[in-house]
Amino acid sequence: MTGVAPLPRQEIDDVLRRALAEDLALAGDLTSSAVVPIDHISSTRITARAGGTIAGLAPAIRVFDLLDGDVSPTLHVADGDRVEAGTTLATVQGSSRAILSGERTCLNLLGHLSGIATSTRSVVDLVEPFGTRVADTRKTTPGLRALEKYAVRCGGGSNHRFGLNDAVMIKDNHLVVAKTVGDAVRMARRSIGHTVSITVEVDRLDQIDEAVAAGADVILVDNLRDDDLRRAVELIDGQAIIEASGGITPATAAGIAATGVDVISLGWITHSAPRLDVALDF
Amino acid sequence: MTGVAPLPRQEIDDVLRRALAEDLALAGDLTSSAVVPIDHISSTRITARAGGTIAGLAPAIRVFDLLDGDVSPTLHVADGDRVEAGTTLATVQGSSRAILSGERTCLNLLGHLSGIATSTRSVVDLVEPFGTRVADTRKTTPGLRALEKYAVRCGGGSNHRFGLNDAVMIKDNHLVVAKTVGDAVRMARRSIGHTVSITVEVDRLDQIDEAVAAGADVILVDNLRDDDLRRAVELIDGQAIIEASGGITPATAAGIAATGVDVISLGWITHSAPRLDVALDF
Amino acid sequence: MTGVAPLPRQEIDDVLRRALAEDLALAGDLTSSAVVPIDHISSTRITARAGGTIAGLAPAIRVFDLLDGDVSPTLHVADGDRVEAGTTLATVQGSSRAILSGERTCLNLLGHLSGIATSTRSVVDLVEPFGTRVADTRKTTPGLRALEKYAVRCGGGSNHRFGLNDAVMIKDNHLVVAKTVGDAVRMARRSIGHTVSITVEVDRLDQIDEAVAAGADVILVDNLRDDDLRRAVELIDGQAIIEASGGITPATAAGIAATGVDVISLGWITHSAPRLDVALDF
Amino acid sequence: MTGVAPLPRQEIDDVLRRALAEDLALAGDLTSSAVVPIDHISSTRITARAGGTIAGLAPAIRVFDLLDGDVSPTLHVADGDRVEAGTTLATVQGSSRAILSGERTCLNLLGHLSGIATSTRSVVDLVEPFGTRVADTRKTTPGLRALEKYAVRCGGGSNHRFGLNDAVMIKDNHLVVAKTVGDAVRMARRSIGHTVSITVEVDRLDQIDEAVAAGADVILVDNLRDDDLRRAVELIDGQAIIEASGGITPATAAGIAATGVDVISLGWITHSAPRLDVALDF
Amino acid sequence: MTGVAPLPRQEIDDVLRRALAEDLALAGDLTSSAVVPIDHISSTRITARAGGTIAGLAPAIRVFDLLDGDVSPTLHVADGDRVEAGTTLATVQGSSRAILSGERTCLNLLGHLSGIATSTRSVVDLVEPFGTRVADTRKTTPGLRALEKYAVRCGGGSNHRFGLNDAVMIKDNHLVVAKTVGDAVRMARRSIGHTVSITVEVDRLDQIDEAVAAGADVILVDNLRDDDLRRAVELIDGQAIIEASGGITPATAAGIAATGVDVISLGWITHSAPRLDVALDF
Amino acid sequence: MTGVAPLPRQEIDDVLRRALAEDLALAGDLTSSAVVPIDHISSTRITARAGGTIAGLAPAIRVFDLLDGDVSPTLHVADGDRVEAGTTLATVQGSSRAILSGERTCLNLLGHLSGIATSTRSVVDLVEPFGTRVADTRKTTPGLRALEKYAVRCGGGSNHRFGLNDAVMIKDNHLVVAKTVGDAVRMARRSIGHTVSITVEVDRLDQIDEAVAAGADVILVDNLRDDDLRRAVELIDGQAIIEASGGITPATAAGIAATGVDVISLGWITHSAPRLDVALDF
Repeated sequence: MTGVAPLPRQEIDDVLRRALAEDLALAGDLTSSAVVPIDHISSTRITARAGGTIAGLAPAIRVFDLLDGDVSPTLHVADGDRVEAGTTLATVQGSSRAILSGERTCLNLLGHLSGIATSTRSVVDLVEPFGTRVADTRKTTPGLRALEKYAVRCGGGSNHRFGLNDAVMIKDNHLVVAKTVGDAVRMARRSIGHTVSITVEVDRLDQIDEAVAAGADVILVDNLRDDDLRRAVELIDGQAIIEASGGITPATAAGIAATGVDVISLGWITHSAPRLDVALDF
Repeated sequence: MTGVAPLPRQEIDDVLRRALAEDLALAGDLTSSAVVPIDHISSTRITARAGGTIAGLAPAIRVFDLLDGDVSPTLHVADGDRVEAGTTLATVQGSSRAILSGERTCLNLLGHLSGIATSTRSVVDLVEPFGTRVADTRKTTPGLRALEKYAVRCGGGSNHRFGLNDAVMIKDNHLVVAKTVGDAVRMARRSIGHTVSITVEVDRLDQIDEAVAAGADVILVDNLRDDDLRRAVELIDGQAIIEASGGITPATAAGIAATGVDVISLGWITHSAPRLDVALDF
Repeated sequence: MTGVAPLPRQEIDDVLRRALAEDLALAGDLTSSAVVPIDHISSTRITARAGGTIAGLAPAIRVFDLLDGDVSPTLHVADGDRVEAGTTLATVQGSSRAILSGERTCLNLLGHLSGIATSTRSVVDLVEPFGTRVADTRKTTPGLRALEKYAVRCGGGSNHRFGLNDAVMIKDNHLVVAKTVGDAVRMARRSIGHTVSITVEVDRLDQIDEAVAAGADVILVDNLRDDDLRRAVELIDGQAIIEASGGITPATAAGIAATGVDVISLGWITHSAPRLDVALDF
Repeated sequence: MTGVAPLPRQEIDDVLRRALAEDLALAGDLTSSAVVPIDHISSTRITARAGGTIAGLAPAIRVFDLLDGDVSPTLHVADGDRVEAGTTLATVQGSSRAILSGERTCLNLLGHLSGIATSTRSVVDLVEPFGTRVADTRKTTPGLRALEKYAVRCGGGSNHRFGLNDAVMIKDNHLVVAKTVGDAVRMARRSIGHTVSITVEVDRLDQIDEAVAAGADVILVDNLRDDDLRRAVELIDGQAIIEASGGITPATAAGIAATGVDVISLGWITHSAPRLDVALDF
Repeated sequence: MTGVAPLPRQEIDDVLRRALAEDLALAGDLTSSAVVPIDHISSTRITARAGGTIAGLAPAIRVFDLLDGDVSPTLHVADGDRVEAGTTLATVQGSSRAILSGERTCLNLLGHLSGIATSTRSVVDLVEPFGTRVADTRKTTPGLRALEKYAVRCGGGSNHRFGLNDAVMIKDNHLVVAKTVGDAVRMARRSIGHTVSITVEVDRLDQIDEAVAAGADVILVDNLRDDDLRRAVELIDGQAIIEASGGITPATAAGIAATGVDVISLGWITHSAPRLDVALDF
Repeated sequence: MTGVAPLPRQEIDDVLRRALAEDLALAGDLTSSAVVPIDHISSTRITARAGGTIAGLAPAIRVFDLLDGDVSPTLHVADGDRVEAGTTLATVQGSSRAILSGERTCLNLLGHLSGIATSTRSVVDLVEPFGTRVADTRKTTPGLRALEKYAVRCGGGSNHRFGLNDAVMIKDNHLVVAKTVGDAVRMARRSIGHTVSITVEVDRLDQIDEAVAAGADVILVDNLRDDDLRRAVELIDGQAIIEASGGITPATAAGIAATGVDVISLGWITHSAPRLDVALDF
């Protein structure tokens, strides 16, 4: 895949600077300072030790720029590309000290984001035949939401709302207060701007008519069985986007997609995706 | 378990403020503002939906303090405690809006750190009978190293160095430059302060004598088979701490511990631990 | 008016801390330090010297908390309230030095935001009879967007998108690249998440059918005469929200609202609203 | 006009980074990412749609540097220049995405600062024949004081103190505490450094002798009629700088200048100046 | 001495947070966490081990607030007070861990600032009989200017300008460009605001007339002998403030003061003052 | 000089940006803006006015990069070099305004750090013949610990721990709580990671056996006479590193080194080192 729009640079740099501060602190890289001559130059390769979908390569490699202007990287793949185990992702040449000092920060970011992209892609492959989208959630790692949602896009996924600020989602906890789905949607519509969409979470089929009537843009059907989902798709009948969520796994994704829902959303692709194994070799 | 020393408050607050900024951005919580009266009060419970070891409960709950001074939480377990599925971890009472606005940040942090503690604890349980320690690595999520290493402690694990700055570790990439293990250790010893320890990574038994002779404090044996590890333990014979690493899993941990190594270190407990499922219910 | 949802505290505090740093710098308040005894206590009033709509009262008064814990304010009106000239908005009692040191920061913020609320309200009053909403734009002061958009809400207005990040708006400059309105809408729909809405700017009636057919959520009609606007309302016929913009003033607002558009958006309510005259008196 | 000393770069970059963070947040520029190819190049012009005095052109254009190193701007006028409606201020060539993403931040800053310069210049033109200076106040927008005071200089104005920290100004609120003008000046003189000047605000002619005798450097005459101002000028007789303030407008400025005061100070040139209309066209 | 105006709290907190981050980093206080029970309470005293003048006591003790809300300090002296060796400055009761973790930050700040106050006071005592002021310079430690200049005030000294921003000082390096003292003063007067003072550095008596004629507010006489200083005082004759600087030590200060200069300024009181020995005892 | 590893760039830049903000604040460099043409170019030299050991030259000169890209410095010595009075350390060519604006920040940093290096070197020269190391302490200036410890390395010294976070040191205040040296060491060993060393402070000879037996890595002998130190060296007999501290001066350093201790640590080389006199001349 190509063409995932790059992240704003200041978002990347903020994350990298915090990571470098964690790793270098006040004393810097004690080992490299002690055993590597300051003018030693190396030529190194970043490789994927397992197959997967890459995300965060350019952001991760930018760490060497922040450490030393004299490191020159060459990228061999692009974010969103699928790679086999053993693929060289990039070559990095320059100051050995800078490469050693930045190596862990680079790999931590690249492995984490590529893990998310790989997990996302595994589900996207299953549901794409049905025209169903795979969306993320707000279950992200504190401080990395922009990067993790970027990784989801690299994996062929689609972004759900980025925060509490950019879309309304009325969930069960809100209904404890607001009583009915219809009232809640109408209260929200009066309060928000005209470019903001409203999602309502329902966990019973009999809430759907009310949600549609109140003008919800998206109906999130939580934890229903496939036959109930099919019934929900019929009831909604194109009057709102229908999103399924709740414990969806690769084992159940295709079945759910086959019910005709527009979107499935999954928390685990961001909160529990295992890291893609990546390495930097001299 | 009790008595894990709490994190410095400003480290926690920095993480929480970044997370809140991600979630609230400029517009705040559109949904709660629209459907929840400003003076509505709720009583809620945070529960573990799966069994595991808790980490980050007090830090996660602090998010409500940052949002609104009028939310009062009560903790029912402490960081480091093992809990069964269904356990109430804390109750949180106060402004419904503040609770709804902070819910996701709270749960993201708690679930992430408890996932790390739970994974750590699963290995600690296996190797404790052998007196072997479980240590983490620097394979952490950018921006969360302090918190993730705290979670490892909550899981009964022990912290390896925190960064490039607080201990020397001479790895294969350094030896490309420094040629011999002995030379590298001696160069490091001259360069560093007298409170800093030196770890040397070896991947062949014939490097061990040289490392011991040069005065390494820790010998990290990478990717050796159990019988080679046993031989390494004999060769080192108490003259240095011996640490095993390289692809150690719950399936192999006990066998490795039985070889007599002092420490096993694992990256996946921080970089690939699945989240512990936690929820906040009204 | 009551019930405008308050801003997140950390957004307010960031603005106030920057403002205090501007005013106090390294030397602090030279005058108060020189002529006011440290234990001198005052009772002061914040008043509106002109009539208008209040915004930012609680945020502005919070400056005294940041300076000194011993100042206690009492608010007499709420954000969103309309007041006559001479109204006491709040009383502030406590350390004279703290009150003098924070006075200018408090009044600058309160006067600026209330100016925006007052300008907004003046247009809202004109178009409310037609059921038309008044929306803001992204023409805000750098660093104050969250607060200025809050002030618009206090004035009875509605918020347009907060940034480039939370809604799509396809403008003339994009069409230089994307060629047709229909293509642009379809490209955007494929790229964005399912909770994001699409606005298309048109400046000719013949673009409307294409925009509607492509599924735009909002059609922004730029700089058309009232009779063309009426025709646009007929063409769109409820299939999209219709927003009018382009040089709308109090003199023209009611006429435009009468055409039946759903929303009018105005830049000047944020970028050129004169300050409401407010003062703090001992 | 030429030769206004440029602002420190880190002050500019702080403002621009905050503004970009407001506009791009976590998701970036959704519209440009969706409809503009990443390698699309444009040639654009920034123009003044109304006549006025320019301020902030180089700072505003710097936003494109922060977004993308491959945008090259050419400035056609300098800060402080007066321009007619329709004047091309700068041309900007490079990445279409970067230009679209930075456009609003650039124009918001340029329009705001040029509005201040234009308002300032309108008063400077009226009072220059009398040799009177036009000074600003601390009634600035929170977070933008350095830039707004720079804009005043671009408009031919002069800066009053920048904060509470760099000059003493004894106002009516201080005299509630300090009782007499003379006492207050003497207390301040003892307390402050020898490079700091003292301004005293008087609103009655009978306070002037005391202020002069106590050694005030500047006497700020607040809200007096022109004939009283003339009398004040006679009384002060060159022993202090005389500054007039209080509701001065373009209608009254020349009359006040003709009384012989050295400086007139106006709050509205910073707090209520309407934006200069500027645009960026592809 | 009493009544030195306290520093703005956010200035203090910024310094303390940076210092705590240096000392606690990611792992926190390893020693206290290991050997001190979390609920252990101590009663401790902060004492001066040498005699001197105290500065920064309240700011330094505030570190315990930032670490733990349950530490309660009692101050026994005030900033600006002279104390004998052995004096108890404050008692601090509360969490032993918090006290141990903050001890070094507290003492580093208190010892550094009290060292500056003590050095300042030693010169002030020598020149006070002559009515001469002791002023600091901009030769301060990066990041601590506000606090160090506060310490000078605590020592009875007076602050010279705080930065390049709040007063004009024309030095020899400027005259390489501006040619004559008179031209430079006149250029500055036109450029700066009316509340800003101008200091001119002269190192020859024949420059004084020109400086006075051009209207300099302060004439800084650099490195002249006492008899030349006396002559300078005669030449200036009250038309400007006269400041002596250049290698002034306690040995030469009284002699210089006796020449009749108004101010002597010294760099070493901030850049080379030895720390006052302070300790915290359990 | 040989091979002092340079500091991480972001640590340097953080310090320089804070220093520039102190000096330029909102108004910038009033004097240079007024009297120096914007395009004026100068060639200047930075010289040592006294002999000493240089530290911080490259970091200090970096201030000109942060101010203006068009200043080009040439370094004539390296950090760690010893220089005579009058030595040219660097030449700096470029914008006169940038050089004047950055001069004080540059010299303050260079003079401060070189003062520390010079003091350190003076002790290192005395004890090197005995093979004894000179170590610093945590008695550093708040906010400058990384730079000051770097300066110690430039002076030939060795770094003690950087903070509470990277090594255990059990001091008298801890023993008030932990009762015995042996218990404290054992508690610490259980709690900390395997790469962390333990230092124990003793002030009586009879504590040494217990400390050695408990496995302390370093025994810090505080305030003992030389004959007691000799006895301590015998008792420890190579089983731990032995460090002497407590009021060590150049007058006593050689005598203490002759006792056979491995390390002497001194606070005054960071907290009370007089600045090295450096200057920038046009």
